[in-house]
Amino acid sequence: MRLRLSHRAHPFVSDQELQNMQPFVRAAHQLMVEKTGVGSDFLGWIDLPEQSAEMIAALKKKANEIAQKSNVLVVIGIGGSYLGTRAALSFLGPALPELAEPALRVVYAGHNMSATYLTELLAELDRYDVAVNVISKSGTTTEPALAFRFLQAYMEKRYGKEEAATRIVATTDRANGALVAMSRAASYTTFVIPDDVGGRYSVLTPVGLFPLAVAGVDIDALLAGARRAKQELVDVDVLKNDAYAYAALRNILLRKGCAIEAFVSYEPGMHYIAEWWKQLFGESEGKDGRGLFPASLDFSTDLHSMGQYVQEGARILFESVVRVKKPRHALTIPELEGNADGLNYLALQSVQHVNDTALRATMLAHEDGRVPQVLFELDDMSEQSLGYLFYFFELSCAISGYLLGVNPFDQPGVEAYKKNMFALLGKPGFEAERARLETPR
Amino acid sequence: MRLRLSHRAHPFVSDQELQNMQPFVRAAHQLMVEKTGVGSDFLGWIDLPEQSAEMIAALKKKANEIAQKSNVLVVIGIGGSYLGTRAALSFLGPALPELAEPALRVVYAGHNMSATYLTELLAELDRYDVAVNVISKSGTTTEPALAFRFLQAYMEKRYGKEEAATRIVATTDRANGALVAMSRAASYTTFVIPDDVGGRYSVLTPVGLFPLAVAGVDIDALLAGARRAKQELVDVDVLKNDAYAYAALRNILLRKGCAIEAFVSYEPGMHYIAEWWKQLFGESEGKDGRGLFPASLDFSTDLHSMGQYVQEGARILFESVVRVKKPRHALTIPELEGNADGLNYLALQSVQHVNDTALRATMLAHEDGRVPQVLFELDDMSEQSLGYLFYFFELSCAISGYLLGVNPFDQPGVEAYKKNMFALLGKPGFEAERARLETPR
Repeated sequence: MRLRLSHRAHPFVSDQELQNMQPFVRAAHQLMVEKTGVGSDFLGWIDLPEQSAEMIAALKKKANEIAQKSNVLVVIGIGGSYLGTRAALSFLGPALPELAEPALRVVYAGHNMSATYLTELLAELDRYDVAVNVISKSGTTTEPALAFRFLQAYMEKRYGKEEAATRIVATTDRANGALVAMSRAASYTTFVIPDDVGGRYSVLTPVGLFPLAVAGVDIDALLAGARRAKQELVDVDVLKNDAYAYAALRNILLRKGCAIEAFVSYEPGMHYIAEWWKQLFGESEGKDGRGLFPASLDFSTDLHSMGQYVQEGARILFESVVRVKKPRHALTIPELEGNADGLNYLALQSVQHVNDTALRATMLAHEDGRVPQVLFELDDMSEQSLGYLFYFFELSCAISGYLLGVNPFDQPGVEAYKKNMFALLGKPGFEAERARLETPR
Repeated sequence: MRLRLSHRAHPFVSDQELQNMQPFVRAAHQLMVEKTGVGSDFLGWIDLPEQSAEMIAALKKKANEIAQKSNVLVVIGIGGSYLGTRAALSFLGPALPELAEPALRVVYAGHNMSATYLTELLAELDRYDVAVNVISKSGTTTEPALAFRFLQAYMEKRYGKEEAATRIVATTDRANGALVAMSRAASYTTFVIPDDVGGRYSVLTPVGLFPLAVAGVDIDALLAGARRAKQELVDVDVLKNDAYAYAALRNILLRKGCAIEAFVSYEPGMHYIAEWWKQLFGESEGKDGRGLFPASLDFSTDLHSMGQYVQEGARILFESVVRVKKPRHALTIPELEGNADGLNYLALQSVQHVNDTALRATMLAHEDGRVPQVLFELDDMSEQSLGYLFYFFELSCAISGYLLGVNPFDQPGVEAYKKNMFALLGKPGFEAERARLETPR
């Protein structure tokens, strides 16, 4: 149940180069642990592996109640309010959700403003027993607020106000904002998004834990994995702390001319882990005109689409590859009489061996193609390993952001489109902004 | 049923700059229409909108037969052999496939080598009536060949050889290769992948048309849309041909310092259109150390994850935004008594209006953030519009690749990992390569 760094981008980065980063890694470490860096009001994620047992028990109780009477949970949230949950469920859950018949399905809303999506969601729900978890710090972020306006009306019409109130759970601010007020008025169960944890660092708060518990995930094991990461990744020595080494490597590679980092995996279930990782690093570091552009590749799938670019395109990319040592199932390749497909040289080998060999082969090919590569090894596809991974990357991201010289915990750029949107939509209070936008450029 | 270029990256690119490209666009156009450029053996896609009526009829007949007796079609293919189908079905099909109960579901295999995925796929299939479409030019590409070895065995065990043969359709080479031989031996219905069409340009061949017909897509309308694009996008004048203008713009922006092009959409159903587009442009242009890195963003979803980077990160990105003018459904925002969520300023407006305003607002914000943007307008989410879009981008990509000075139709870099993989797996004939790889570096 660990994530290990097993390849440090050699021959493109030497251990000496990595060691040269030590004083800066130490400085970044001190900013973090002494809470003296920019954004230090948002360091609550550090202690999330040790949650209050009382809160966890309350959360499980309500999750159990919801799971008893529902077979669909609609998670309403955007950005960090849903990506951690989606990442965890794509990793732990069925590989083919469209064929599987789980006791409970989690679907998402409030992460887009597509009339197509929302209309079809509302139409499909009639066939299911529905519960809703609305997740928003303020309650006024347009996407989730809009979806909740529809879903709340749907639930009250279908179940009546009283029963709907038992099927709707709000995860929101402790005391302030529209959603906490609405929840009080309607007597919803609420869980708290801590003040000192930003959205992209929130998967181990009730934001992620509640829907995961409803879906049957062992959240104790998830937290135990994170706790182990927290206990293990403490050495300030960049050669002994994999999370710090990764942070230093990204900063070295950026300054060697890499503009893009691609998160690469060979398990389809890691697709949304990559999306979570993209938000974590992209939003933490993409500011002040800086930052690596975070991309993701699902191999070997994308070797047949983006592989050409990676092998021979512009040399501005490095890859961070996650190898899963033990997939969820073992599968042996049968022998085929006559060998018509020419694959009998693989007969009686495991599919995992072939997949793993594709990884090794690709790393050698990309090295020949001058693509620096970092390799991580994840033990298995368990809750523990996932918790370890979440914490590992959160820690690494904090150090990496400080090394880059930015505030790893804010996201000022996210306001720009919102402000324009409020102005163009005629939201009260944005009249001056509207006038500015309507001035011909 | 059209795709129109409605914003040409001003103020970052002037019309004069675009016009300066005219002689080069003309030269690229001539390479293509006179078939004198590199890769001209692979220009068959140009005429795909006019297919043989006989082939289409045969394809529909078999599709209908399969659709009558199956409720799951497993499409086995990788890269261009499945991405066009997936793009079309994610665009035209249900927005929430995990909740919907369509008459027939299409699922994919052979696009990865995950034991987790393949094991769960095989286990789930027992509950469904299954058909298989295996798509491979050679029949020996490892990923689909491996999946088909499992699926063929599954089908024969479950249905018996004779019935299985009626439920398996192969799309492959006209005459040569392992898959055509296997199909003859087992009497499978086969459809042909033309010799002069590469994988990423193949969606309008039986590669895409057959599974789409099984899924109930109106393939005549799809082809009609492509035909219209072919008829309309003929002007060699870069200011009058949107496909050529787009090709020229990408080349200008690359040389202005953009390293990354992000395909942006505001409809979740366009997610796999973006994946198809990424392969089209990434594989056509990512060679000889060149090419834009193709990325994709689903807005407004990703405005809350990657939006920060786009607004304020390194200035090396431009966006190609597709606006869908008319979504599949209309939905009006209800009024909420008391206005607890503060959204009543949107009451009685359409969700589409809000989504569209988010697009406008974001474009203004990103312009302020110095991100060049190209805007496309797509009329609706119909088969016709999709056919138009496919052809538009294929045409544009050919011109763009020639403008870049590369062969837009080959993919030499895809072989590198395969060769290493065969060597490491001990495939007969790769002994020398294996020895080379095992030499310490």
